[in-house]
Amino acid sequence: MSTTKNNTAILLIHCPDQKGIVAAISDFLLKNNGNVLDIEQHVEKDINHFFMRVEWELTDFVIPREKIEDYFATLIGNKYQMQWQLHFSGKKPRMALFVSKMTHCLYDILQRYMSGEWAVEIPLIIGNHENLKAIADRFDIPFHHVPITKATKAAQEAKEIALLKEHQIDFVVLARYMQILSDDFVREFPNQVINIHHSFLPAFIGARPYHAAHRRGVKIIGATSHYVTADLDEGPIIVQHTTSVSHKDSIKDLIRKGKNLEKMVLSEAIYLQLQHKVLTYKNRTIVF
Amino acid sequence: MSTTKNNTAILLIHCPDQKGIVAAISDFLLKNNGNVLDIEQHVEKDINHFFMRVEWELTDFVIPREKIEDYFATLIGNKYQMQWQLHFSGKKPRMALFVSKMTHCLYDILQRYMSGEWAVEIPLIIGNHENLKAIADRFDIPFHHVPITKATKAAQEAKEIALLKEHQIDFVVLARYMQILSDDFVREFPNQVINIHHSFLPAFIGARPYHAAHRRGVKIIGATSHYVTADLDEGPIIVQHTTSVSHKDSIKDLIRKGKNLEKMVLSEAIYLQLQHKVLTYKNRTIVF
Amino acid sequence: MSTTKNNTAILLIHCPDQKGIVAAISDFLLKNNGNVLDIEQHVEKDINHFFMRVEWELTDFVIPREKIEDYFATLIGNKYQMQWQLHFSGKKPRMALFVSKMTHCLYDILQRYMSGEWAVEIPLIIGNHENLKAIADRFDIPFHHVPITKATKAAQEAKEIALLKEHQIDFVVLARYMQILSDDFVREFPNQVINIHHSFLPAFIGARPYHAAHRRGVKIIGATSHYVTADLDEGPIIVQHTTSVSHKDSIKDLIRKGKNLEKMVLSEAIYLQLQHKVLTYKNRTIVF
Amino acid sequence: MSTTKNNTAILLIHCPDQKGIVAAISDFLLKNNGNVLDIEQHVEKDINHFFMRVEWELTDFVIPREKIEDYFATLIGNKYQMQWQLHFSGKKPRMALFVSKMTHCLYDILQRYMSGEWAVEIPLIIGNHENLKAIADRFDIPFHHVPITKATKAAQEAKEIALLKEHQIDFVVLARYMQILSDDFVREFPNQVINIHHSFLPAFIGARPYHAAHRRGVKIIGATSHYVTADLDEGPIIVQHTTSVSHKDSIKDLIRKGKNLEKMVLSEAIYLQLQHKVLTYKNRTIVF
Repeated sequence: MSTTKNNTAILLIHCPDQKGIVAAISDFLLKNNGNVLDIEQHVEKDINHFFMRVEWELTDFVIPREKIEDYFATLIGNKYQMQWQLHFSGKKPRMALFVSKMTHCLYDILQRYMSGEWAVEIPLIIGNHENLKAIADRFDIPFHHVPITKATKAAQEAKEIALLKEHQIDFVVLARYMQILSDDFVREFPNQVINIHHSFLPAFIGARPYHAAHRRGVKIIGATSHYVTADLDEGPIIVQHTTSVSHKDSIKDLIRKGKNLEKMVLSEAIYLQLQHKVLTYKNRTIVF
Repeated sequence: MSTTKNNTAILLIHCPDQKGIVAAISDFLLKNNGNVLDIEQHVEKDINHFFMRVEWELTDFVIPREKIEDYFATLIGNKYQMQWQLHFSGKKPRMALFVSKMTHCLYDILQRYMSGEWAVEIPLIIGNHENLKAIADRFDIPFHHVPITKATKAAQEAKEIALLKEHQIDFVVLARYMQILSDDFVREFPNQVINIHHSFLPAFIGARPYHAAHRRGVKIIGATSHYVTADLDEGPIIVQHTTSVSHKDSIKDLIRKGKNLEKMVLSEAIYLQLQHKVLTYKNRTIVF
Repeated sequence: MSTTKNNTAILLIHCPDQKGIVAAISDFLLKNNGNVLDIEQHVEKDINHFFMRVEWELTDFVIPREKIEDYFATLIGNKYQMQWQLHFSGKKPRMALFVSKMTHCLYDILQRYMSGEWAVEIPLIIGNHENLKAIADRFDIPFHHVPITKATKAAQEAKEIALLKEHQIDFVVLARYMQILSDDFVREFPNQVINIHHSFLPAFIGARPYHAAHRRGVKIIGATSHYVTADLDEGPIIVQHTTSVSHKDSIKDLIRKGKNLEKMVLSEAIYLQLQHKVLTYKNRTIVF
Repeated sequence: MSTTKNNTAILLIHCPDQKGIVAAISDFLLKNNGNVLDIEQHVEKDINHFFMRVEWELTDFVIPREKIEDYFATLIGNKYQMQWQLHFSGKKPRMALFVSKMTHCLYDILQRYMSGEWAVEIPLIIGNHENLKAIADRFDIPFHHVPITKATKAAQEAKEIALLKEHQIDFVVLARYMQILSDDFVREFPNQVINIHHSFLPAFIGARPYHAAHRRGVKIIGATSHYVTADLDEGPIIVQHTTSVSHKDSIKDLIRKGKNLEKMVLSEAIYLQLQHKVLTYKNRTIVF
C-alpha cells in the first residue's frame, strides 16, 4: 500500500521458480542506478512458480525509459523464461466504464476520479441504456449509448471494441453493466475487464444472487470483483468483502446493504489495477 | 430492517420499566384497528428503563392522524411517565447538509438521495467554504456559503440557524464539516445533528486522528457517526465500523481507507435516522 | 443478547400472521402476573408468517409450570394456529458431542462448559475414532467409541440413537465429526443436530472445502453452522463468519485460519441454541 | 503466511534505508548457495528506515549455522549499520505462560500446542493464583504458583525471572494475567513479553475496559495483543480485532463476546512470534 511516486517504473514478473532471481533483478537495478522503492515476491510452492513486483525510481536510472523493456529481456527476462509487464507511474492509465441503469458504483468511481484520489483518465462511458447519460454529462465525460439486443450484439460489440481502441483504453470496468460480454470481446481484452458480481463467489453465480441468498437463508452476503473470462463469474478474483445479514433483512435490504459492498469492492479492485499490483496466473490473482 | 410502508405511524417510546407496557400499547393499537407491522422493545436492566419502537398501519386506524398524539398521551403515555416521538412514514424528513471541502461523504449521500434509496428531502447545503458549490449546483440543491471565522462565528451560526428553521429542517448532517458547532447551536438541535468522526471513538478524539493512529501503530482504523453534543466527539454513538491496516499503510493510505468507512458509517446513520430507528438516552443510543 | 434469569419461561412461537397476536400474548402474560423480560417478534412479509420469542419471570406467575403448555394451547395457541416450544431457563439442556480426530472445536466447547460460560450438561461424547478419548477422560465426560464402516453404519447409528435417548439428550453437536449421518438418524432429531461446515455455504459444499477455496483463488474463507437435514450441507443456517485470505495463504494456512472461524461459529450456534433463540421455518432460521 | 520448512534460517533486519541492501543480501545468499524461500521488505518512508525478513534453506548453504552470525555481520551487517536477529526454524522457541484465573486464552493456547498447530515448547506456566494448576496438570506442564502482593512483588518477580532464565525462555505470554509487571521485569525481556488487552487500544486503557465500553455506548469492541513496555497498555501493537455489539449487549455479553476476540488475537500474535514475523521499531511493529 506504499505510495508510489511520479517518476517510477514498475515490473510485474512471473516465471518458473529458480535460484537467484531476486539477486539478478536487484543487482540489475542497483548496477544501473535504479533506487528500489518497493519489492515484493511470492513463490507458489505447490506449482513452483515465482511472482514479483518491483518498483524503482527512474530519476538516475541509466537505461532510458524506452529501452528498459529491451535491456531487461536480454539481460534477465529471457534467461529465466519470465513473462512480465512494465509500467510507468507517470503515465495515467486510461479506463473505460460500462454501465446500465444503476448509479451507486458509477458515482463512487467518479467521486474518486474527480477528487484526485486516483491517477486515471476516463475518456468515455458506454451504456447499453441511456439512463446514466445525464450523470456522464454532469462530469463532462463523453457518453456513448450502445444498446444491445440478441440480434445486434455482435455488431454493437464490434462498435464498442472500436471505441475502446480508438481511445487507447488500457482497461474496462463493468460498473454493474447488465450484459454478458461475448467470448470474442473478452478475448480482445485479456485480464483487462474488471467486473463486480454481487455475491461472494463461487456462491450464487449468475442472475439475482440476492434473491438466491435470501432464499437460502444465509447470514452473510458478499461482493466480488474479478477479471472477466469466457466463463461467466468464473474469472480470477481480485477483491471480496462480506457483511452480516439477518432474518430481518428482506431482499430489498440485501440489495441495499450489498450496494455498499459492491462499490467498495469494485473501487478497491480499480485502485489495485491502477497501482499495477495485480498479477494473474492460472485463474488466480497475486495481489501485491 | 423491515421495509416500512407508505402509510404507517411509528412511535419511539421510553419510560421507567413497569409491568404491562407492551400489553397496554398492543391493546391500544389492536382496539383501534392499527395493524402492527413491527414492534421491538428493550429493557436496560441495570437502570430499569424501558424502550420501544412500534410501527403500525394507518389505513384502518380509527384515531385520525392529528389526534394520535393527544389520545396516546391521555390513554397510555402519561400513565407510564413515557417520553415519546411520533413519526409518519409518509412524510419525508427534511435534512440539511453541512460541508467543507471533502467530497466523498457528500457524493455518497447525494447518490442515495437521487437514486431513491432514501425517502428524504434535502432543501439546502451549507458550506463554510465555497468549493462544493459546483456539486450542489449539479444536483440542483441550493448551496449557501457561510464562511466562519472566530470573530464572525456567533453571527454566522445565527444565520445558519435561521436558514434551518426557515427550511423546516428536521435534522442536520455534518458531512466532514470542519467546524466545531457552538454550544448554542447544538442546544437548538438536540439529537438532531449527526456527525462523522474519522476514528473508532473514544480513541483519537479531536483533530487529525489518522495521524495519531499512524503514530500509535494501530492495526485497525475506524469511523464513528454520533449525535453532536456540547462535548466534542463525546455524543451518543450511532454506528461504528473498522477495517484492518498494516505497517505498509502510510498516513495517506489510512486517509484513503478511512474515507470508505466514513461514508459508509455516516450513510448508515442517516438511514437509521430516516427510519426513525434511533432512540437516545443518557448519552447512549438504542438502535432498533 | 440480554441475560436470561434462572426462573423464567421462554416461548418460541410461529403462526400465520394475524392481527392481535402480540396483544393476545402480552395480555395473557400480564393477566397471569408474568413479568415480561424480553419480547421479540418478526413478520416474514413475503409469506405472511409471524414469529415470536417471549421470556417472562415465573416467580409470581399464577399458572403452574406444568400447566402452562395446556393453558397456552387452549387460550391462545389453538386460536391462532400456532406452533410453539416452551422452555424453562432453570433447566440445563443436555448436549451430546460427536467428534472424530480434530480437537479445536472440542476444546473450545469444553472450555466454555467448564468455565460456566454456558448452562449446559454434556452427558457424553461419541467418537467414530478413539483419538479424543483422552481429552474426554481429562474432563471426566464419558466417551463412547462408535466406529462406523459402510457395513456397520445402520447398526452403529442405532446404537448411537439408543445412547442419546438413554441420556435424554436435547440436541447433538457435530464438532468436526467426519461422518455423514443417515436420513434415519436425522429424522429422529429434527433441528436438533448442529453441524459446522468449513466454508461459507452455499459455496464449497461437500468434502475438502479449503482445497476447493484455494483452487478457486477466493479472497475470503468462511465457516457455517447449520441444522443437519437429509440434504448434505443444505440445512438451515444458524451462524456464518468469514475472514480475509490472500495469495500468500497455502491450503495449510487456510485450514489454520479456518479453524478459528469454525470453533467460533460453532460455539456461537450452541450459545444461541442454549438461549432458545433459534426458530426454524422452511429451511431458514429466525435468530432472535 | 507461507509455510516454513524445518531446516531454514530467518533474518530479521532493520537499518537506515540505503541503496543496494536487497541486492547485497540476495547476492550473499545466492553466492553461498542459500535458496531464498521468502523475502519481504518494507521502507518506512517518513523516517527513511529499512526493514526486511528473509528466510532461506540451510541444506546446501555453505556457511555453517554457528558462523552465519559472524559472516553476516562482517560482510553485510556492519557495512549498513544493521540491527538484526537470526533464527532457525528447526529450533522450537520456548514460551512461558503467565495466568491468573481465566481459562479461555489458556485452553486456546494449549489446544494449539497439543495439536501440533504450533512448533513451540511450553516448559512452564506461572500463576499468581492457584486456580489453573489443575489444567496445567492435565496437560502435564509444570505449574508454579507465585502469588504477588504489594509487599512481596519485587521478591516474587525476581523468583519469576530466575525461573524464566533457568528454563531458557525465549518469550513470555500473559494469558489474561491480572498483574502489572514492574519496569525491572519488563527491562529484562524487551519485546519478549506479549500481553492481551481487552479493548481496541488506545481506547479504554487500564482496568475494566468492557465496563467503560458499555458506559460509552460503543458499537464495536476489540482486543489488542502487544509487547509489554514500561508504559501500561502503550507497547507496540501486534494484532487487533473488533466485533460488533449493540444496545442489547449487557456488560456480561461484552465480556463473553470479548473473550472470543481475546483468545484469537493473542494466539495470532503468538503464531507471528513463532514464525519470527514481527519486528519492533520505535513503539510500532512491522508484521511481515
